[in-house]
Order: sequence, then structure tokens, then C-alpha cells
Amino acid sequence: MFFASDNAGPAHPSVMQAMLDANTGYAMPYGADEIMQGVRARIRDLFEAPDAAVFLVATGTAANSLALATMCQPWQTVLCSPVAHIHEDECNAPEFFMGGAKLTLVGNGDKMTPDALHTAYEAEETRGVHGPQRGPVSITQVTEKGRVYSLDEIAALTRVARGFGQQSHLDGARFANALVALDCTPAEMTWKAGIDAVSFGGTKNGCPGVEAVILFNPDKAWEFELRRKRGAHLFSKHRYLSAQMAAYLADDTWLTCARAANANCRRLADGLADVPGVQMLHDPQANMIFADMPRAAHKRLKDAGAAYYVLSGDVNAGDPDEPLPCRLVCDWSIPADQIDRFLQLAKG
Amino acid sequence: MFFASDNAGPAHPSVMQAMLDANTGYAMPYGADEIMQGVRARIRDLFEAPDAAVFLVATGTAANSLALATMCQPWQTVLCSPVAHIHEDECNAPEFFMGGAKLTLVGNGDKMTPDALHTAYEAEETRGVHGPQRGPVSITQVTEKGRVYSLDEIAALTRVARGFGQQSHLDGARFANALVALDCTPAEMTWKAGIDAVSFGGTKNGCPGVEAVILFNPDKAWEFELRRKRGAHLFSKHRYLSAQMAAYLADDTWLTCARAANANCRRLADGLADVPGVQMLHDPQANMIFADMPRAAHKRLKDAGAAYYVLSGDVNAGDPDEPLPCRLVCDWSIPADQIDRFLQLAKG
Amino acid sequence: MFFASDNAGPAHPSVMQAMLDANTGYAMPYGADEIMQGVRARIRDLFEAPDAAVFLVATGTAANSLALATMCQPWQTVLCSPVAHIHEDECNAPEFFMGGAKLTLVGNGDKMTPDALHTAYEAEETRGVHGPQRGPVSITQVTEKGRVYSLDEIAALTRVARGFGQQSHLDGARFANALVALDCTPAEMTWKAGIDAVSFGGTKNGCPGVEAVILFNPDKAWEFELRRKRGAHLFSKHRYLSAQMAAYLADDTWLTCARAANANCRRLADGLADVPGVQMLHDPQANMIFADMPRAAHKRLKDAGAAYYVLSGDVNAGDPDEPLPCRLVCDWSIPADQIDRFLQLAKG
Amino acid sequence: MFFASDNAGPAHPSVMQAMLDANTGYAMPYGADEIMQGVRARIRDLFEAPDAAVFLVATGTAANSLALATMCQPWQTVLCSPVAHIHEDECNAPEFFMGGAKLTLVGNGDKMTPDALHTAYEAEETRGVHGPQRGPVSITQVTEKGRVYSLDEIAALTRVARGFGQQSHLDGARFANALVALDCTPAEMTWKAGIDAVSFGGTKNGCPGVEAVILFNPDKAWEFELRRKRGAHLFSKHRYLSAQMAAYLADDTWLTCARAANANCRRLADGLADVPGVQMLHDPQANMIFADMPRAAHKRLKDAGAAYYVLSGDVNAGDPDEPLPCRLVCDWSIPADQIDRFLQLAKG
Repeated sequence: MFFASDNAGPAHPSVMQAMLDANTGYAMPYGADEIMQGVRARIRDLFEAPDAAVFLVATGTAANSLALATMCQPWQTVLCSPVAHIHEDECNAPEFFMGGAKLTLVGNGDKMTPDALHTAYEAEETRGVHGPQRGPVSITQVTEKGRVYSLDEIAALTRVARGFGQQSHLDGARFANALVALDCTPAEMTWKAGIDAVSFGGTKNGCPGVEAVILFNPDKAWEFELRRKRGAHLFSKHRYLSAQMAAYLADDTWLTCARAANANCRRLADGLADVPGVQMLHDPQANMIFADMPRAAHKRLKDAGAAYYVLSGDVNAGDPDEPLPCRLVCDWSIPADQIDRFLQLAKG
Repeated sequence: MFFASDNAGPAHPSVMQAMLDANTGYAMPYGADEIMQGVRARIRDLFEAPDAAVFLVATGTAANSLALATMCQPWQTVLCSPVAHIHEDECNAPEFFMGGAKLTLVGNGDKMTPDALHTAYEAEETRGVHGPQRGPVSITQVTEKGRVYSLDEIAALTRVARGFGQQSHLDGARFANALVALDCTPAEMTWKAGIDAVSFGGTKNGCPGVEAVILFNPDKAWEFELRRKRGAHLFSKHRYLSAQMAAYLADDTWLTCARAANANCRRLADGLADVPGVQMLHDPQANMIFADMPRAAHKRLKDAGAAYYVLSGDVNAGDPDEPLPCRLVCDWSIPADQIDRFLQLAKG
Repeated sequence: MFFASDNAGPAHPSVMQAMLDANTGYAMPYGADEIMQGVRARIRDLFEAPDAAVFLVATGTAANSLALATMCQPWQTVLCSPVAHIHEDECNAPEFFMGGAKLTLVGNGDKMTPDALHTAYEAEETRGVHGPQRGPVSITQVTEKGRVYSLDEIAALTRVARGFGQQSHLDGARFANALVALDCTPAEMTWKAGIDAVSFGGTKNGCPGVEAVILFNPDKAWEFELRRKRGAHLFSKHRYLSAQMAAYLADDTWLTCARAANANCRRLADGLADVPGVQMLHDPQANMIFADMPRAAHKRLKDAGAAYYVLSGDVNAGDPDEPLPCRLVCDWSIPADQIDRFLQLAKG
Repeated sequence: MFFASDNAGPAHPSVMQAMLDANTGYAMPYGADEIMQGVRARIRDLFEAPDAAVFLVATGTAANSLALATMCQPWQTVLCSPVAHIHEDECNAPEFFMGGAKLTLVGNGDKMTPDALHTAYEAEETRGVHGPQRGPVSITQVTEKGRVYSLDEIAALTRVARGFGQQSHLDGARFANALVALDCTPAEMTWKAGIDAVSFGGTKNGCPGVEAVILFNPDKAWEFELRRKRGAHLFSKHRYLSAQMAAYLADDTWLTCARAANANCRRLADGLADVPGVQMLHDPQANMIFADMPRAAHKRLKDAGAAYYVLSGDVNAGDPDEPLPCRLVCDWSIPADQIDRFLQLAKG
């Protein structure tokens, strides 16, 4: 019963097989391998972006940090949600790669609103050379609280950024989960909605460790290459990154995995609706649930070995009916019977 | 006939198999996986260093840059050979991770001598606060020209560094190739010879992409962890790094691969000794040959599809007898018949 | 009628004279001048801190950035007010000098409360290696809204920081204005209240351009020297910095200037209390007033050439009675008749 | 008898007087003062560069570091002499401001030759994304060994840089000393010879502490402003920098001082020619002498209190006839009788 994160499950067998298949003979290093040529063509095709620059790295933090460093000068500030992964979970990596640029936190929740973004942009650059200068907005899709921005919401945010002359970055660590939730095309969720650069995640959705960075405007492609190398994120035996991404995108594996993860989450959410005392923060749209659940339920689950984060409070001491908040994340691989067992234990 | 680099061949089958085997169920992310516990214990055992801090990253540049950043302040300088990988082939990554520290180039060749190192150290810090301050020495073993420092040579260099109060780093991208060449223990080639931190390579010797950083003094272990995360080099699905390293070190695979690579190189070198007009820069000790070879031989080889670097001159135009320098690198996987075919073509 | 800032008035004549007096013959460069020896002794004496390390730089941003860089690792975060000068007015200089550390904004106002600081510290480091790590607190005295922390308030904040193992920095760009407001000793306002490092301002209070950095614990004195040089903030002809600071601290010039500035502000505030429609944000404690004033009053003042910041709204268009917020800063040099003229115009 | 450096003498009285004169009433801060408008116009006029961007900072290291950071990306390398001030005497400040770019040392002496520069440029970027990328050349005029590049020599170097698509920076800490030595115009020594940006020194030649940065192409003027602020090098009370530079450039004070310094040096050199056992490294062209002098002469001078650097060897022990190398620097203010006394002591 593992619901702690979607970064702890196994990779999809077809992805592993592709790495094995790639393991024959010699291949050009550093991204010049033939598999990468196919990956680049495939991503350009998928995103209807024939000129896009496409790069692979192995971690989501690398994808975000390198993309943002290419979009943001050291004296600027990136606008993002206060719960953005780039702010809370990357140990200052974006600031490091950007050479000391700042993050400006917009609003109080996981979803930025256009109004809050506009207000935040307006507040910057009121002090001439003295204050931080405006920089790009970074939008997390799926948000860190499990919600999905609609296409209109994304477009509204990027419109605000563009109005201030700024670019828009999409942190798509859970890109596929959002895409299947919205039932739209990759182009619709990105450049057609005003996104300039995407961190396109593979690791949380069936790959051992691969993320693509897609720059729809390729003007800074060579700068990105240099930044990737200088960040020590250029793989010599690059073919094993390429193979992961190729298999991930082949036969709709990425969509299949995302649909499975979201369906697992839906099954869990539907079951939780019947658990007495459970209150969900949002109706889950992708593969994450934030919910309050009575202490007694937590205790039964933890005692049975369920793995997930209780966000505050002591599971073992206190009023058994007191609700304690928790986070439940489903990856593609969770067997249905484990979800059902989790629900059974929750109900008590 | 691929002799361009040892970063382009396939991974050892047992390493790939280990990644497959690791792909079941859930595993704690970010280095807390069980396989990593075994890897840590195995490396401590191998190096006779029960307290050593052990970390995995995916690229050699990351290993070097993070290790050096932990050893060197931004106002200091790292002493290294002018052909050191950290200087010539990492696109300023060490400087980036160290926050703008400098590299001071020692001597003119691939091997630093204790005298040259002493002179270089003495020349630093003669200007008080104004000049760069002394920092660690970084020694590449196998050197970028294919030579191997003897244990005495390493000890002499680290003694000089210690005399100036400085630490010593070993860039062991080809650690195993050097170890089998010297027929010594890992401890003898490192801390017993005065080395404080090692980049222990796997990628060039049978792994898809894994390097260990070993800090014999664990005082900065937590700092290293933070630097790794901030550098975006901490893998969420860390088990696939662990699995590579575990298999690499199991059943002496790492030594077997290194012996095969060195033997391939020896077979090639012995054959080249009989090729008219060939002059070797050094008798190869590990898995790299630097040699002058007549243009005509290069032309025959290139026309037949042999892959390797001709370091200067035009293969296709000029005196057929003129010697042109080249680099030939052997990995563990080269079939003997390809070496023999290469030699046949070279002989003409 | 200049109330725009305390960085635009003249320097105190005795400070200028001291620079002239210093301009004879040769003097050791880079801080080794004799005047600096006196300055160091004088500051140690004034602060009752015989071991303190004392450095001079020419800008407040340099003092803050260098002090914080010495106290905060790149993976940490500095806790400060959301209106802190280091956050709003230094164009990411602290982040630059700290190598990409973050600033965490505490509370909503100019004064941090111990509770808000405690909450902010508690929220950091809940994510292990992933989130930014806790760093020092930076307290601005006088605050950017013109208020003065009491000694108890400072002590309460530094106690919170210390409870989390962190140091405390005082941004004392207006140190003297606060000191005379509190009528306490330098030691009481700093190390006796738990402060570890101070940016001790001279520029806003009678000097052309000099600030001292005082580290009560001198362990990092040499590191600070190296950071200052590396930041290009070590003056070769250092005697002219020393002379400023020596004169500033001689004959209580610094206190005289600060008392004059605060008295000017008091005269202005007392007068404004009689101006119809004026509402002060706080009763001013030092040399800054934040107040709402009717548009008509602003218009009369601006038309007459008064220089100060109207913080929002259009002075020239709209309801004449509508209050518009403004900032009024008094330096030591404002003649009383200009204050009175300002008040007369405000009254209409 | 002070010949240790040109950064230890007094400022020219007219420069000090100008600071005093500037000390009346209020002046716009941060470079918006009226005096700065005059300085900007004067420098544009002097350099026949009506569009040039002109900035003032207080240290030469700041001028160099900020200019180079504006010209060089973090993944590039600056080409310079191995004895360049930016390499040997700025404690990694250029690397810090450039975000970790490298310095590549050209040749073995103080003067780079076009051939050596060409060779160095050619050696860069032979490794694609892996090696440091080519960046600007930085030329020190006067060199750190007291020599002056001819206009043709400068033009030849900048031509090489331009041939590789790179810009040229002139470190003119001793700009005026070179200018009067060459008897040319500022335009001839800079943009007419292919220079793109200049660090124009005042501190070593009669000012307490001011340097101008001149960018002949103003495209990056705003970026420079932001870098200056972010580097904590923007002065609030900027008028005191402006006043220094204004007085320095008025009435040919800068040229008068430089001529005096060079004449002092000439008097010293002419006298040394008659001292037995003295051997000069170069005939001095500006205000610095590098010479070998017998130990006995050094001893007499040091015993009499002469201040200058003996570059190696122990003055007090050894063969009295053994020549020891020294550096002698003359500023504008040295009285002739001190030079004569120095010579007398040298002769013994």
C-alpha cells in the first residue's frame, strides 16, 4: 500500500526493455545517438512544434533549473506559487542555476490566479534599478496540491506574463496526468496556451529517470546545451536517456500510465467518499489526494504498513476522531486490491 | 572498429540485468533505497574505510564538480594538470559548482610532478588577500594521456598538498583501469596514498551512467548531500543508480571489465608496434593509446569506418607517409577480431 | 524642502575635513592605514567588544550582502521582513553574494514578531534535503517603515533564531537614529540583545559613503576579508574610508547628526498633527514618517518644489480631499525653516 | 621614499576640493546627480564617443569585473596575460562576477602577442560543448610590468579577437600614464584600435577612489546598471564619485598627474642607469620600473626606510653583490628630492 509518492514505484516494463534493447554495440555519446534523433522528431511531432529545441536530462529539478536559467537573468525574479516545487523542494537549485535570481511567491494557494499574478508583476520594477526585475512565470501542472489548471487558466496566466514582456514556463513533472485529465493535446496545453518552455516529466510516470526540456523558440538552444553541460547534466552514454523517452512515448505508454495513475486515484477517492470523517481538500483531478482523515483511520493504516504522508499531528496520540490531513499519491502501478485494502482499513 | 571513446560502448549485461531486477515494487526514493545500503557497505569494505561517506551521481562531471566544491572555497584555486578533464572538458562546471573558484594549471603535461606542484603552490598566496588562495590538488588517474600514476607518485603529490594544508582529490573516471594496471588495492591507491576524496567512475567501464563520490572524512557528508540536491543531481528513483553500482562491484565485474579494456589496449599496442611508421607517445598502461601513424594508414582505417580521433592534420590530403597523431581508446567490449582488423588495415 | 531620502543630503563638514586632513603623504593601502587602526579600536570600544572584527565598505548593500554571505550557506535561507531593504532594494545582491541562497519573508509588516519568526523557522527544514535549510535572521533597525525595535523585541527575535541554531544580523543603515531613539548603548542594541553581526551605517547620517561591518565573533574575519576583496569592495586608498568613519565617531558627530535628524522628523510630525486630513501610519520614532495626506496638500507641496515620495495615486488628478500615502525622510541637515515652510504649505 | 605602489599617495588637491565643493545641499542619488551629467558628457567628448555608456565605480576590481561580466558568459573564458591584474590580484572577483567563467592565460609575459592570442583562441572551442567557449580578450594598459602597448599592438590584438567573434576589454587602471607615454588621443588608444569597453582608472593617478567604465556600444548599458547595483557598487551619494571624476578630467589634471608620475619614473630610471650593478628589465615607458639591484643597495635603502617591493631574495642575508629583483612605482606626488635621495642611497 504505497501512496507516498509517484517517484517510488517501478518503471514501466516497456521502458526497461527499451534500455536493454539499446544496450548493443556503440552509440554516439552526448546526445548524438540515433535514438535521440527519433525522440526529438517524436516530441516535435507530438507538440506540433517542428522547430522546438528538445533536450533530455535525468531529474525534474535539472529540467526546471536549466529551463528557468535560460529564461531568467540573475537580477530578475521568477513568479510562482508559494507551494511550487521549484520553491519548496529543490534546495535552492533554481537560484543556483539562475546565478542568484529570486522567486516571487504569488497568492496563497497552489493555483495562481491571473489577478494575483498581475498584482505581483505590478509590484516588481517599481523601484528602478534597486528592486529585482520582472522575470518569467512558472506554472506547475499538475499543481503540488493535485489540481489541474484548465487551458483557459493557463492562457490567462501566460497572457498576464506576456503583458509584462515576460515568458512562461510549465513545470510538467506530471504533464501526462494533467493532459489525460484535460483530454487535450500537448500543443493545446503548452504553446497554444502561451507556454514558452516545458519541463516534460517522465520519471513520475513510468521511467527510471528522464525528463525532457522543450523550448518552443529555439533561439537559445545552444545556450541551453552549454548550460546543461556546465551543470553536469549532459550524459555521455545518452542513449539510455533516449531509450527511456522513446519507449515512454511509443505506443502511448505515457498516456496509458497516466490514465492508470489517475484511475487509481479516482478509485481511491471514490472509496474515501464513503469513509466516515474523511474530507477532501479538492476533488482530485489527476493522481493526488489531499484529505483530512480521522486519527483512528490513520492509525489502522499505518499499523498495517500503508506508506503515505500525514501532514501534521501525531497519529498515535490524541482524540481518535480528530481529523489529520494527509497526502495520497497514486502511480500507474498500484494494484487495485491494494487500493481496496487501503479503503477497507480506512473504514475500519 | 570503435576506438573513439570508452563512453560509447554498451553496458555490461549484468549491470543491465541488475537494473531490471531492481524494477519491482516500491523503493524508498532519494538514496534511501535498500540497494544503496548495500552499495555503501560494499564500497566502505572495498576501500577499507568504514567511516567514508558514499554518494552516487550519474555523470563524471557531477562527481568531480560536487567533490571539488565541497573541498574548495570560491576564493581558492584547484591545482591540476593543464590537460585535466576538469579544465578542458567540463565547460566550466567545476567553476560553476565552486562559486567561481579558479583552476591553476601545473606543469605542461598530463602528469604533475611533485616539484611542479610545489612551485605552483608556492606561487599562490604570495599576495595576501589579493590573489587566489591555495586550494586542493586534483589528480586524474588514469591521466588524460593514458598514463597511470604509481602509488609513490600519488603519495608524493598529496604530500606536497598536505604540506600546504590542502586536500587531495582523485578524478577516477578510469579508476578500475588504473587499479588493475597497478595491481593494488583501492585503499592503497587512495587514502593510503593521501587522497581525501575520490570520483569513482562506473560509466566508462561497463555502466550506463553512475559514478560514486567517496569522502574518506565524512565531516562534510551533509554538506555534500545538500550540494548534490542543489545541483539537481539527487535522483528520486535512486534505486537504478544503486543497482548499477551494486552489479558493477559484484563478482568483480568492475575489475573484469577493466582488465578486458586494458588487455584490448595491450593487444592493439602490441600490434601497432609492428606497423611501419607508428610511434607511440607512451607505452600504454591502461586503455588508451596516443600515437603518431602515417596518413596513409589513417586513410585506410577511416575509409573502412574505423572510429577514433585524429588529433591534428587532414587525413585525406598530404604526404601519405606524414605521421598524424591520434587517440585510440579501448573499452571492455571490443571484440578481438575488430582489433585485429584495425591492425591489418593500419599495416596496409 | 528635501524629504525624499537621507541619502541625498550633504555630508557633515567635520567628515569632509577629515578626508582632507587624511590627504597628506603616503598611507598603507587596503585597510592597513593608521587611521583604520584607530577606527577599529574606537568601534571595539564603543561596542564593548574587544575581539570584534571590524571592516569598512562604501555601500550599505555591500555591508549587508557581505555580512550575510559570511553567515549563510548557499542552500540556506535568510529570514527577514517582506519590506526589508535586502529584499526590496538591493537588486538580488544578497542572493548574488550568498551564491543563490533564498530570502524567506516573515509576516506582513516591517516589524517581524517572534511568533511569526518562529512559525517561519518551523516551516523550513520540514523536507530534509529537499527544502532550503534554515539560515540567519536579518533585522532592520530602524525598519523600512520608520519604526524602531525595542531592545526586548530584538532580544526576542534573536532568541528565536538561536533556538533554531541560527545567527542574527542587524541591518543598521540607520543604526544611530535608532540608538538615540532608544537611548541605549551600542552593545545593548546589538550583542547584548543577541546580534552576531551588524551593518553599521554612516552614509545616511553624515558621511559621503562608508559603512562598517562588525562581526562580534571574529572566527570568520579572514573569510570576510576574502569575500570583501572578491566582491571588489576592498579599497586601495582605504584611508578615505577610514577618515570618514573616524570623524563620524569623533566628538559624537554620529549621535549629533542622528539626534538632529530625529528632531527634524519630530518637528515635522508635530506640525503634521495639526494639518487637517493627515493621518500618520505610526508615530515616528526615528527620522521617517509614513502618512496619508490629502491630495490638495500634496499638490501645493509638489508645486512648490518639495521633494518626497507619494507612494500611490496621482497628485494632480482627483478628489482634492482624497488621502494619498507618502514617505517623508529627514536627514541631519534640513534647516528648520524648510520644515516650517513644508508644514505651512501642507496646511494650505 | 615611497615607491611601493601608486595607490598609496595622496589625491590631487583639486580633486579633494571638488568633493568639498560638491558637499552643499541636496543632490539626486544613485548617479542622477548633476555633476554626473557633466562627467558623462566630458568622457563622451574626450573619447569622441557620443553614444558611449559611462558609469562610475570606486575600485578598479569592480570596473574590471563588471565590465567583463557584461562581455562574457559564464561558460566562456577571458583571454589575458598570465600576470594580468584580473588573474593575479583580484581574488577571483572576475570569476565571481562572471558566474564562474574562466581566464585563459596567453603566453608567458606581460604583453600578449597577436600570435599567442591567435593560438590561444584556436585552442578553445575545439571540443564543442565540452570545453570553455571563447570569450573576450582583456588587455592591460600599462601592463603589470610597466610596459605600454603601442596603438598597433592593441589593434593587432583586438583584430585577432574580432576574427574569433570576440570583444576586447582594456584594463586601464593606468590609462593616463599610457596615454601620455604614447602621446595619442583616448579614442586612438581605445575604440579606434578596436577596444569595446574600458576600465578607465582614476584611483592610481590622483583620485581617492573612482574608476569609469566606458562601453562604446551602449546596448548593454541597462544590464551594466543592474549588474553594478547587484554587485553593491552603486553609490547612493554618487555625487562624491562624480566630483572626483569631474575634477580629475578638468584642467587636464589627469594628464598633468600622469605626466608627473612618468617624469618621476624617468628621473628614477635615468639615475639608476648610473648605479653599479643595476639591470633594468625594460626601459620604463610609464611609471613603473622592474630592475635587478645588488643586495647591498637594497639593504641601504631599506635601512633608510625606502618603501618598495623586493620581489625575491633576502635583503639582509647573502652576497652583497648578488642582484635581487625589485619593483619601483612612482605616483604623481613624489618629490624630486626623495627620488634623488633614493638614488644616492642606491649608489652607496
